[in-house]
Amino acid sequence: MKHLNVWREDFVSGTTVGVIGGGQLARMMIAPAVELGIAIRVLAEAPHMSAELAETAVGDYRDAATVLEFARTVDVVTFDHEHVPQHVLRALVGAGIRVHPGPDALLYAQDKLLMRARLSELGLPVPDWAAVESAEALEEFLAAHGGRAVVKTARGGYDGKGVRVVSDAHGADDWFTALAEDSNGGALLAEELVPFRRELAQQVARRPSGEVVAWPVVETVQKDGVCAEVVAPAPATAESTATEARDIAIQVAEGIGVTGVLAVELFETPDGRVLVNELAMRPHNSGHWTIDGSVTSQFEQHLRAVLDLPLGSPAPLQPWAVMVNILGGPAGESLVDRYPRALAGRPAVKVHGYGKEPRPGRKVGHVTATGDDLDAVLADARGAAACFL
Amino acid sequence: MKHLNVWREDFVSGTTVGVIGGGQLARMMIAPAVELGIAIRVLAEAPHMSAELAETAVGDYRDAATVLEFARTVDVVTFDHEHVPQHVLRALVGAGIRVHPGPDALLYAQDKLLMRARLSELGLPVPDWAAVESAEALEEFLAAHGGRAVVKTARGGYDGKGVRVVSDAHGADDWFTALAEDSNGGALLAEELVPFRRELAQQVARRPSGEVVAWPVVETVQKDGVCAEVVAPAPATAESTATEARDIAIQVAEGIGVTGVLAVELFETPDGRVLVNELAMRPHNSGHWTIDGSVTSQFEQHLRAVLDLPLGSPAPLQPWAVMVNILGGPAGESLVDRYPRALAGRPAVKVHGYGKEPRPGRKVGHVTATGDDLDAVLADARGAAACFL
Repeated sequence: MKHLNVWREDFVSGTTVGVIGGGQLARMMIAPAVELGIAIRVLAEAPHMSAELAETAVGDYRDAATVLEFARTVDVVTFDHEHVPQHVLRALVGAGIRVHPGPDALLYAQDKLLMRARLSELGLPVPDWAAVESAEALEEFLAAHGGRAVVKTARGGYDGKGVRVVSDAHGADDWFTALAEDSNGGALLAEELVPFRRELAQQVARRPSGEVVAWPVVETVQKDGVCAEVVAPAPATAESTATEARDIAIQVAEGIGVTGVLAVELFETPDGRVLVNELAMRPHNSGHWTIDGSVTSQFEQHLRAVLDLPLGSPAPLQPWAVMVNILGGPAGESLVDRYPRALAGRPAVKVHGYGKEPRPGRKVGHVTATGDDLDAVLADARGAAACFL
Repeated sequence: MKHLNVWREDFVSGTTVGVIGGGQLARMMIAPAVELGIAIRVLAEAPHMSAELAETAVGDYRDAATVLEFARTVDVVTFDHEHVPQHVLRALVGAGIRVHPGPDALLYAQDKLLMRARLSELGLPVPDWAAVESAEALEEFLAAHGGRAVVKTARGGYDGKGVRVVSDAHGADDWFTALAEDSNGGALLAEELVPFRRELAQQVARRPSGEVVAWPVVETVQKDGVCAEVVAPAPATAESTATEARDIAIQVAEGIGVTGVLAVELFETPDGRVLVNELAMRPHNSGHWTIDGSVTSQFEQHLRAVLDLPLGSPAPLQPWAVMVNILGGPAGESLVDRYPRALAGRPAVKVHGYGKEPRPGRKVGHVTATGDDLDAVLADARGAAACFL
């Protein structure tokens, strides 16, 4: 483990949150940490990552000794991603380190098959699903579901990776082969193709001593499997749907003991029901709007939750907030060079840059607009984001 | 000049703001800079100051070579305080470095006699004043103003230092002696004791290309010459008073060419007129409420202004915001240890810690509450701040 910066002795604060992973989610914890007077230390995968302004060490999060060494310098460990292996997480807990969310909860963000099983056990609404270990099993699932299904790898998928729509029993043979070659073996997750009306996301925060707060449910728009736009709150949502979304997320948080911020991605069906799609136990793209649009941002709330501090109000600051991702960004150019164009005549737009080099499809920033007229807010956010194409 | 941190190469952003001074005002620029994807470098007076999370060098801001070396590593230079000498500022400008606010404007934040003369020249309302060079001259001023006056040193005063109410012509003899010993000589500023109803502060931001925006005028409450509490907007303010405050600040900004954020401290007289008390050409304690209470905080706005980016909306997010300073803080204890008490049951309160060691009278943080009921907001902010006594 290479220490890029010497840890600073912050005798005044005395409180340091350690974040495993140096991406933009860790970066966006820096601002509320500075305001709260809490130190952040990051264990990054590589030098010069997005969160580098924080005190940063570079090391392998899959190596228990590295992570333990890092964890012993902080008061609580949390995450920028959910890929830290269970054996590493359990070594931390065994060493008496506070880890939030803990391994028992993270398990369900790491393995989609376990997640599906646990949610079904909790009686929560999920798409029809099955663990399929072979093309034959997949064929059976296809036959029972109109000949089409979503197939997912249980582990490692994100932003559209590890997810495939198949209509042929041999459509996932490469993944079956990969699983067979993996000494662990295992199965793929097959799910019914839900004819959803739209996608929603519900965020809640829960602290170890039990307090839970919920932001309003939002609508998310994906492009090519990647979150492109979020409207908060989700427009034209039945009260019953909003309540169900909130209740589901709280049941997930309490049922599996999530600490910190939890995002539940949902499908809304044409008849107004919601089904759980995915879980993320960390700040999430669907909650970036909260930085500018809520009394308490998901990043501040996550820090407060993992430190077991009283949670802040999740109330929106304006009737509408729209977040649009900056995907790709201007090749070979600085985002900042486009700020004059993006901000001119849009006084309520906020641009967020992640300090990442633009390249096709990469999330390099986002813009948020807020206001009381949804059409105007949408136009502002989309107009500003378009300046970075 | 000792480089505590190696400057990071931020090829993606390509934009770095250099801040002279490492106190809490520099610190509070870090959060919006991280969000905007702009790098901040600080020239601090000493190691381990409040803004240390930013890339920090330690050096003497009165030494032109030191400041020039620092300035050459950034895109624009701005300030945490107004004490950088004119010869240093002019050396920067002479070297082609962008400095905001520039020396011609900063002059009037550095020297209260020049400020009074310039404001009088601009026809702006100020208390009766005179430059007094001796006890005799002070006696004359006292005689013409009911036997009492406020006497101020022209330079170096802040937070109640360098300000004294006198009713005796010899009440400032020590300062006259000090001036005589100073090779520059000079005069003191004598001002009428304004029978003000309350103190107000008006903040505006102006970018080099001319755009100006104004936050609502606020009421400030001083204790022992130090800002203790700010209510935004100033309660029960006549429309004409609010308009006059805004117009005065805009005239000051344009009249003396201020770039960045300008705070104008004002006296409101019992008959609703306003008189200019002091100027600050940087983010100011009277604007800390904007972090949580305005679409654009004074710190984000200052960065945008000094970079000549389009300015953001100064609109309040809630009907009321109240900021209370944490003065002194819990001796020998971390502020964070008091957060559970301060935040419990106050979901709309934000606590800001400056990473400074608590000691009597020192500004170590502030709290802000927002909401639509002023009494409730006041109770929240005062109640939370009291948890740090």
